[in-house]
Amino acid sequence: MLPRFLADAIDRAARTARLGADETRHLSQVLRLRAGDQVIVFDGAGGEFRARVDRVSRDGADLALVEQTVAAPEPAVPVTLAQAALKGDKMDDVVRDATMMGVAAIEPLVTAHTVAHLKPGASPDRWRRIAVSSAKQCRRAVVPRIGAGVTFDDWLARDAAELRILLVEPGALGADAPTDAKAAAEYAERGPTPPTSATIVVGPEGGWSAEEIRKARAAGYRTLTLGRRTLRADAVPIVAIAVLQHLWRDL
Amino acid sequence: MLPRFLADAIDRAARTARLGADETRHLSQVLRLRAGDQVIVFDGAGGEFRARVDRVSRDGADLALVEQTVAAPEPAVPVTLAQAALKGDKMDDVVRDATMMGVAAIEPLVTAHTVAHLKPGASPDRWRRIAVSSAKQCRRAVVPRIGAGVTFDDWLARDAAELRILLVEPGALGADAPTDAKAAAEYAERGPTPPTSATIVVGPEGGWSAEEIRKARAAGYRTLTLGRRTLRADAVPIVAIAVLQHLWRDL
Repeated sequence: MLPRFLADAIDRAARTARLGADETRHLSQVLRLRAGDQVIVFDGAGGEFRARVDRVSRDGADLALVEQTVAAPEPAVPVTLAQAALKGDKMDDVVRDATMMGVAAIEPLVTAHTVAHLKPGASPDRWRRIAVSSAKQCRRAVVPRIGAGVTFDDWLARDAAELRILLVEPGALGADAPTDAKAAAEYAERGPTPPTSATIVVGPEGGWSAEEIRKARAAGYRTLTLGRRTLRADAVPIVAIAVLQHLWRDL
Repeated sequence: MLPRFLADAIDRAARTARLGADETRHLSQVLRLRAGDQVIVFDGAGGEFRARVDRVSRDGADLALVEQTVAAPEPAVPVTLAQAALKGDKMDDVVRDATMMGVAAIEPLVTAHTVAHLKPGASPDRWRRIAVSSAKQCRRAVVPRIGAGVTFDDWLARDAAELRILLVEPGALGADAPTDAKAAAEYAERGPTPPTSATIVVGPEGGWSAEEIRKARAAGYRTLTLGRRTLRADAVPIVAIAVLQHLWRDL
């Protein structure tokens, strides 16, 4: 299997691609590739090519496109994961896993119980690098967009997905929970028509405030729980995405 | 929420429990609990009690049981994860995640393409400690059994679960793959009757040899793939368990 690199730019007309400094360092110093070697280059938006290394310098590499290749298939339902920032390196794992599962975008949230340090509008480049690395490892040609971080209220106002799901702890639900559980069961039974787009909103370690759950429902979100056991906050996204993609025949 | 400890022994008749040195260190040195403090103590097999710390010494602690408590519900289908040993600390994550998902047992395998160092019969205590820690974090009162490590052939001869599944890469299937895919789709459609027990067998980073897939099928295993994207080897178990438990209404 040829090694994969994310291009800074691909010029399809000129049949050339350009790698930035980071990718070039990986190409020349880690993998010790030279002019003439073949690689896969992708544009992060689904385009992927076999290419030949042409010139390598300290700040970049020029490649000549050889032929378009067939990238790993993307999910039919574009999923946005809106994830309350988690402590330590747990958010790294969430970004890595969600990218592997094929999400279209990841939006870090600041919620009432968010402990992790995240200023709205100041999402670290670190997550973008992790998403790139996971896309390369999982052979995706798409790198999910990483949002700049927003407050929960701003997210509710902005979210325009057809299906919007708020993941909640089993104990967090109010009196109308049975309705949701019934709806979820029916949804599972009849082999649902996949939505045209979906948002999965996952809370921080400390869960949602009652007010946040109320607001999300008022904004049209379904509240769903993932079973009866306690999942780690950083494991909720991969489990939720796996189950939903399976329901949609989109895994 | 009261802190949780795994007992070395619980005497229900005498209404006492004994913690070993590791759990006692956590109790007294990390959490700074003293005689009189209340905790949850569980036996690793589903029994769980509220208890009061009685005596703490360097090599153990004695607790007095106060009342039996209701442990987190265990899955209805006991699942054994037979996992080819993975490199580095990836196996740690698999043990942690599988414990969180409620597996009954984890059996490390040595397969044709296993790179990680694992002598059959020499599974490290480390995985047992990780399983204990994950059970405590996820509020399970059951700690999965960690096998001592077996070869793939020995595992096939020993596995007695009703439903036995070999997870394979999409590309690894031979000519009879469509039959499996059809069977899997039908299985998903009709809301399957859960098996009385299940084994999920997951390969190493390098996948299965053709011979191993042939042997597993001859032994009655279903071969299933997890969708069209490439999952990291250490992420396959959590995704597979989530989807199967959802199918069985056992998440």
